[in-house]
Amino acid sequence: MSEGEGPGEGLVTAALVVIGDEILSGRTKDKNIGYIAEHLTAIGIQLQEVRVVPDEEPEIVAAVNALRVRYTYVFTTGGIGPTHDDITADAIAKAFGVGIDVDERALAPMQAYFERRGVELTPARLRMARIPFGAELVENSVSIAPGFMLGNVIVMAGIPAIMQVMLDAATKYLKTGKKMLSAALDLYRPEGEIAGMFEALQKRYPDVAMGSYPFMHDGKPGTQLVLRSTDAARLAAAEAELKQQLSARGWL
Amino acid sequence: MSEGEGPGEGLVTAALVVIGDEILSGRTKDKNIGYIAEHLTAIGIQLQEVRVVPDEEPEIVAAVNALRVRYTYVFTTGGIGPTHDDITADAIAKAFGVGIDVDERALAPMQAYFERRGVELTPARLRMARIPFGAELVENSVSIAPGFMLGNVIVMAGIPAIMQVMLDAATKYLKTGKKMLSAALDLYRPEGEIAGMFEALQKRYPDVAMGSYPFMHDGKPGTQLVLRSTDAARLAAAEAELKQQLSARGWL
Repeated sequence: MSEGEGPGEGLVTAALVVIGDEILSGRTKDKNIGYIAEHLTAIGIQLQEVRVVPDEEPEIVAAVNALRVRYTYVFTTGGIGPTHDDITADAIAKAFGVGIDVDERALAPMQAYFERRGVELTPARLRMARIPFGAELVENSVSIAPGFMLGNVIVMAGIPAIMQVMLDAATKYLKTGKKMLSAALDLYRPEGEIAGMFEALQKRYPDVAMGSYPFMHDGKPGTQLVLRSTDAARLAAAEAELKQQLSARGWL
Repeated sequence: MSEGEGPGEGLVTAALVVIGDEILSGRTKDKNIGYIAEHLTAIGIQLQEVRVVPDEEPEIVAAVNALRVRYTYVFTTGGIGPTHDDITADAIAKAFGVGIDVDERALAPMQAYFERRGVELTPARLRMARIPFGAELVENSVSIAPGFMLGNVIVMAGIPAIMQVMLDAATKYLKTGKKMLSAALDLYRPEGEIAGMFEALQKRYPDVAMGSYPFMHDGKPGTQLVLRSTDAARLAAAEAELKQQLSARGWL
């Protein structure tokens, strides 16, 4: 697909860093990438890169620092729980060269929450109130211990249910760009037959990203053709021409 | 989790590059990362990084070149079909600075396969026989158009069913390392209570990677404790001590 030469005018871009040995070992199957991708697309932010890295500080620091200068936003998931392998907050502080300590804004609601439930605020749980200096908190309405946003980096939990409420909470801090619009067509034709026509169409509409995705339904090979653009008029024109081409061949 | 300072003796490492705008837009949910992670773990290869990049040649080249010098193997998925947005083979040739052309070893079985099925070998389909110079083919028993291995980079399809047979076919080319062994324990205790004991245990066994993963089953919070090591004796010792510690607290 020809997405152009990187973020154009009005485009807001993002990268995602998934932090977790358990994803890399295959023990846990990631459910966050697809969710975050869909959410960002829906609010007009283009996810341009994802990295999955282990629970190792140098790896997290390197990934975050490589990506935060390149994209409007960097989201992270994972590694903000209470145990010794939860090192994301410290890694982000290090990436930005700022200090980190227990943050009263995070601690007070956690104290109230744990007290209400008769749960002891162990030193381990206190770790979850450690927030890098200068960060805004990102609310966690599920289990209270917050995420945070430092500069253009949004740090969220790895547990999908908690990540999802944090992503909603973070969205209010984000500027959103021109929304990527799309049109999709499912054809029961194999990719190899459509390819020539589709490539010629792409050449006539270099500003409309065109991708084709083969599928099998009930043993029948098909292809989903997807057109994407931030310009509704150009998208509609390309879609109309695509339909005309397909009709002319008796494929629609 | 303390995985050590990178590949140790006997460790065989890998990275995965998932190529696809459709994953980044959220339109398609990736099913390959988890599968490949599990497969590699099972054969003694440690997956250490995953990147999802768009269908853009400079991005693919940059990711592959950054990773292939760092890990024993780099796997890629996606972008080897017949349409104009399938640019992986050309990007890999460029990454290695080698030429690319239709490869007789790939073409002959594709010709026979298409002929048998009465399918025309369009110029688009011919693209799937383009293989960088110097690559070994990776067999595709599902739909014949092969993947390939060039240097330490293994290029596979994005469609899960095809990727999976290619991964099996590629495995015979791979050296495998010391197998990462693991032991897991599910406890109905929240992470915050276990954390202190678990961190102390990690300090006594710096060579056994220890991770904890919270879960919710039927509204009951629990934690999975995972120990990982390539040394069976050390793993068993750490596991025994963990169980003893948990029993002493009445948690097991």
